[in-house]
Amino acid sequence: MTSLPASVEALRREVLEQNLALVRHGLVTLTWGNVSGLDSATGLVAIKPSGVDYGEMTAEDVVVVDLHGKVVAGALRPSSDLPTHLVLYREFGTAVGGVVHTHSRKAVAWAQAGAEIPAFGTTHADHFFGPVPCTTPLSADEVVGDYEENTGLAIARRFRDGAIDPAAVPGVLVAGHGPFTWGASPRKAVENAVALEQVAAMALDTLLVRADAPVLPDWVLRKHFMRKHGPNAYYGQR
Amino acid sequence: MTSLPASVEALRREVLEQNLALVRHGLVTLTWGNVSGLDSATGLVAIKPSGVDYGEMTAEDVVVVDLHGKVVAGALRPSSDLPTHLVLYREFGTAVGGVVHTHSRKAVAWAQAGAEIPAFGTTHADHFFGPVPCTTPLSADEVVGDYEENTGLAIARRFRDGAIDPAAVPGVLVAGHGPFTWGASPRKAVENAVALEQVAAMALDTLLVRADAPVLPDWVLRKHFMRKHGPNAYYGQR
Amino acid sequence: MTSLPASVEALRREVLEQNLALVRHGLVTLTWGNVSGLDSATGLVAIKPSGVDYGEMTAEDVVVVDLHGKVVAGALRPSSDLPTHLVLYREFGTAVGGVVHTHSRKAVAWAQAGAEIPAFGTTHADHFFGPVPCTTPLSADEVVGDYEENTGLAIARRFRDGAIDPAAVPGVLVAGHGPFTWGASPRKAVENAVALEQVAAMALDTLLVRADAPVLPDWVLRKHFMRKHGPNAYYGQR
Amino acid sequence: MTSLPASVEALRREVLEQNLALVRHGLVTLTWGNVSGLDSATGLVAIKPSGVDYGEMTAEDVVVVDLHGKVVAGALRPSSDLPTHLVLYREFGTAVGGVVHTHSRKAVAWAQAGAEIPAFGTTHADHFFGPVPCTTPLSADEVVGDYEENTGLAIARRFRDGAIDPAAVPGVLVAGHGPFTWGASPRKAVENAVALEQVAAMALDTLLVRADAPVLPDWVLRKHFMRKHGPNAYYGQR
Repeated sequence: MTSLPASVEALRREVLEQNLALVRHGLVTLTWGNVSGLDSATGLVAIKPSGVDYGEMTAEDVVVVDLHGKVVAGALRPSSDLPTHLVLYREFGTAVGGVVHTHSRKAVAWAQAGAEIPAFGTTHADHFFGPVPCTTPLSADEVVGDYEENTGLAIARRFRDGAIDPAAVPGVLVAGHGPFTWGASPRKAVENAVALEQVAAMALDTLLVRADAPVLPDWVLRKHFMRKHGPNAYYGQR
Repeated sequence: MTSLPASVEALRREVLEQNLALVRHGLVTLTWGNVSGLDSATGLVAIKPSGVDYGEMTAEDVVVVDLHGKVVAGALRPSSDLPTHLVLYREFGTAVGGVVHTHSRKAVAWAQAGAEIPAFGTTHADHFFGPVPCTTPLSADEVVGDYEENTGLAIARRFRDGAIDPAAVPGVLVAGHGPFTWGASPRKAVENAVALEQVAAMALDTLLVRADAPVLPDWVLRKHFMRKHGPNAYYGQR
Repeated sequence: MTSLPASVEALRREVLEQNLALVRHGLVTLTWGNVSGLDSATGLVAIKPSGVDYGEMTAEDVVVVDLHGKVVAGALRPSSDLPTHLVLYREFGTAVGGVVHTHSRKAVAWAQAGAEIPAFGTTHADHFFGPVPCTTPLSADEVVGDYEENTGLAIARRFRDGAIDPAAVPGVLVAGHGPFTWGASPRKAVENAVALEQVAAMALDTLLVRADAPVLPDWVLRKHFMRKHGPNAYYGQR
Repeated sequence: MTSLPASVEALRREVLEQNLALVRHGLVTLTWGNVSGLDSATGLVAIKPSGVDYGEMTAEDVVVVDLHGKVVAGALRPSSDLPTHLVLYREFGTAVGGVVHTHSRKAVAWAQAGAEIPAFGTTHADHFFGPVPCTTPLSADEVVGDYEENTGLAIARRFRDGAIDPAAVPGVLVAGHGPFTWGASPRKAVENAVALEQVAAMALDTLLVRADAPVLPDWVLRKHFMRKHGPNAYYGQR
C-alpha cells in the first residue's frame, strides 16, 4: 500500500470531523450513521469504518476505497453501507462530493411510512427544491443479492424516473430504512442531513396541526431555493 | 464610515449576545435565526450577518443599517431577512426595540399549517394577549418582487386588518415560513421567541389530548396578561 | 426584622437548591416555575422570588412568609403564585412540606385540555395512587378577585369533592394553566413534578398508539403504589 | 461473607458502568431503571441497588446475589425488580448475560397500550428479528403474590407461547409497565435498551405519518438481522 496524496489524507480528516459533527447534531444513536467524501482528483472515497465507537475513531480508521469499493488504505472494514454511497458518487456526478446516511428519528418515520416529505414550508425550500422522494421497496431478489448496491440503484432509479435533479434535491428516503443526503462536500452533506431531519419533524407536526395542510406554492419554493442556491443567491456571505 | 455612537456599539454587543441566547435556548438549527435591535436615539438597527456560524460571530460582524437598510457599519452582508425586520420597526413603532426570526420547530409547524395558535392556557396569556395570528400567503407577485419587505408588509397588514395591538401580541406566524417575535428590547424579543415555541408545542399537544380543547375564557386571558404586563403588574420585581 | 431560626435558614437554602433542581430536570422555561417549602416548627414558608433569573438567585433572595403571606424575611417580592402554595399548606396538612408549580410542557397540555391523566401504567402508579385530577375552571369572579388564592381553593375543592387523599395523589392539574405537585419536602415535591411530566408525556403517547388504551387494573395500581409508599414498602433503602 | 472471585468484582464494576451508561443515553428519569449482569462461571448476578442516586453509586453498592436471589455481597437492598431479572437468566439460558429494565418514555407508551411494536424498518430489524412482543396482563393473584417473579414468568411464557427466540428478539414490553431488554453482556443489554427506545419512538411516528404503514417484508427483516448477527455477519469489525 503506497502513501496517499495529501488531498486524500485531508479528506480522511474531514470525513472523521463530519462523522463527529453528525453526533453533535444529535442525528446518531449508538453507531448508526456514516459520512463519506470523494476526492475528485483521484476518484478515491473516504468513509467511516463499520460499527466503531465515535469516541475512539481516528483519521487512520477512516477507510479509503476506489469508486468500486476496493480498499486502498485503512485496516478496518468500511461501513456496510459503502456500496450505496458508491452508487451515488457514480450516478449523480458532480453534485456529490459527500454522502451521509443516518437513522435520524423523524426522517426514518417518513421512510418507514414509505411516504415522500411534501414541501410544506420555506425551511424545506431552503434545502430541497421539491418533495424529498421515497424509493419504492426493493424486491426479494434485490435484497438477497447485492443489497447495499441495489439500495443505491433504487435511489438513482427514483431520481431518474421522477426526473429529479440530485443537485436540487440533495436527499432521499429509502423505504423502510432511512435517509441518505449528499452535497458538494461532506460538510454540506451533513448540513443537508440536519436540514432533512428538521424538515421531517416539522412536516409531521404540520400534519398533526392540520391533516390537509397546503404545500408551498411553487413561487415560494423557487424563491427560497434560489435565494440560497441559485446563480443570484443572496443568502450568506460572498 | 465615521465612528458609531457608544449606544450603537453597545447595541451591537447586545444583538450578538441575544443571537447566542437564541442558540442556548435551542431555537436555532444550523444558522437559521436572527436577532436585531433598534437604537431609538439614532434610528439605527443592528442585525446578525447572513449565514455566519454562531461560534465565530463577533460584535463587529453585527451589521448596522439605517431604517431603510443602508449599511452604516459592518463588512458582512446583513441577514437576508433584514427588510422584514425593518418593516416591523417602521410600522409597529415604540412597541418594537428588538426583532427575532427563527425556524423553531413547533412554531413552524403552525405556520406551515397556516393556522393561528389559539390561547389555550395561561402560558400563552402570560405573553400573548390573544391568539398568535398567522399571515395570509403572499401572492406570486409579492414573492417574486421585494419578497422580504413584502413579508413584513403582510405582517403589518395582518395586525391592522385584525385590529391587533403589536404591543399586546408580540409575535406572528408567517404562513408557510415561520415565526417572528418582537419586544421592547432584543432580550425581550428573544424571550417572546422562547415563549412562542413553548406555546406552539403545548397547543399542538393539547389538541392531541383533546381535539376540541376549549380556549381560555377572556377573563383568565386578561388576568394573566395584565398581572405581568398591565399598569398594575405584580409579576417579577419592582 | 429579627433573625430567623436555623431551620428556616436551612429551608431557604433547600428551596434555592430545589428551584435549581427544577431547572436541571428540564421542567423550567425562562423563569416559569417555583418551589416552596414549609418549616413545620415555625409554620414559616420559604418560596422563590418572582421573575428572578435562576442563575443569579441566592438563598437570601428566597422569601420567607407566614402561612397567611406576611413577609418575614427577604427583600424581593415572592412568587406571584404564593397564595396558591399557602392554601395547599393550610388545607392539605401534614402531607405537604413542599410545593412545586411548573409550566412543564406535557402536563400543561393535559391541563389545557381540561382532562385528568388516567393511570395507564406503573410509572404513574409508583407516584400517584389514581388519576391525576384536573380542577374545574374558575368563575370570572374568582379570577377577577383573589385569583391565586382561589386557584388554591379550587384545588382543595377538587380533592375534597373527589374524596382524593393528597398524600396518595400528590399532584393536580389546574385547568387551562398547569401542574402543581407537593410532597413531604421540597425535594419530594420536585420528584413528583418530574414524575408528573413523564407520566403526562407517556399518557399522551399511549393514546396516540391506541386511543382506547386500558387503564391499569386496580390491583396493579395498589401494588406499585404500596411497594413504594405503603407501610411495608420495599422499594429503595432502609 | 467470603471474598468474591475477581470475575465477579469486575462484573460489579461493569454493572455500575452500564447503569451509568443508561443515564447517559437518556433512558433514566430519577432512579427508574436498572442493569444486572451474570457471571456465568459462578452463576452469580450483580445488580443495581434499589432507589439509589446514580451520582453516588459505587461498585460496592452493586449487590451480588445467586440465581435464586440470596444476597452474597453488598450492604444495600437489590433493585426491587431483581426477581424478574433472575427469571430471565434462568429461563433464557445462554442468550442472557445482562438484563436491563427502564421506564424509557416511548417504549412505555407501547407497553401501556398493551401493543407489540411492529417491525416497520431496518433500525428495528438490526436489533429485533420480528415484532417486540408485549406480555398479557398478570392476574390479580399474580400481582398480589410474587409480583416481580410473576412478571418474569409472564415474559418467559410470552416467548414460549409465541415460539420467539430470546436470542433473536432480545427485548419485551411488560403490559402496563415498560420494557426489559437483554443481551450477551450488560453492555449489549444496554445497547438493546437504547435501540428499543428509538424503535418505539420511530414506530409511533410512523403510525402518525401513515396509520396503515406496512411492516417490513420478511426478506429485509432477515437480511438486516443476519448481516449484523448471523453466522456471516459483515456489520462491524472482525
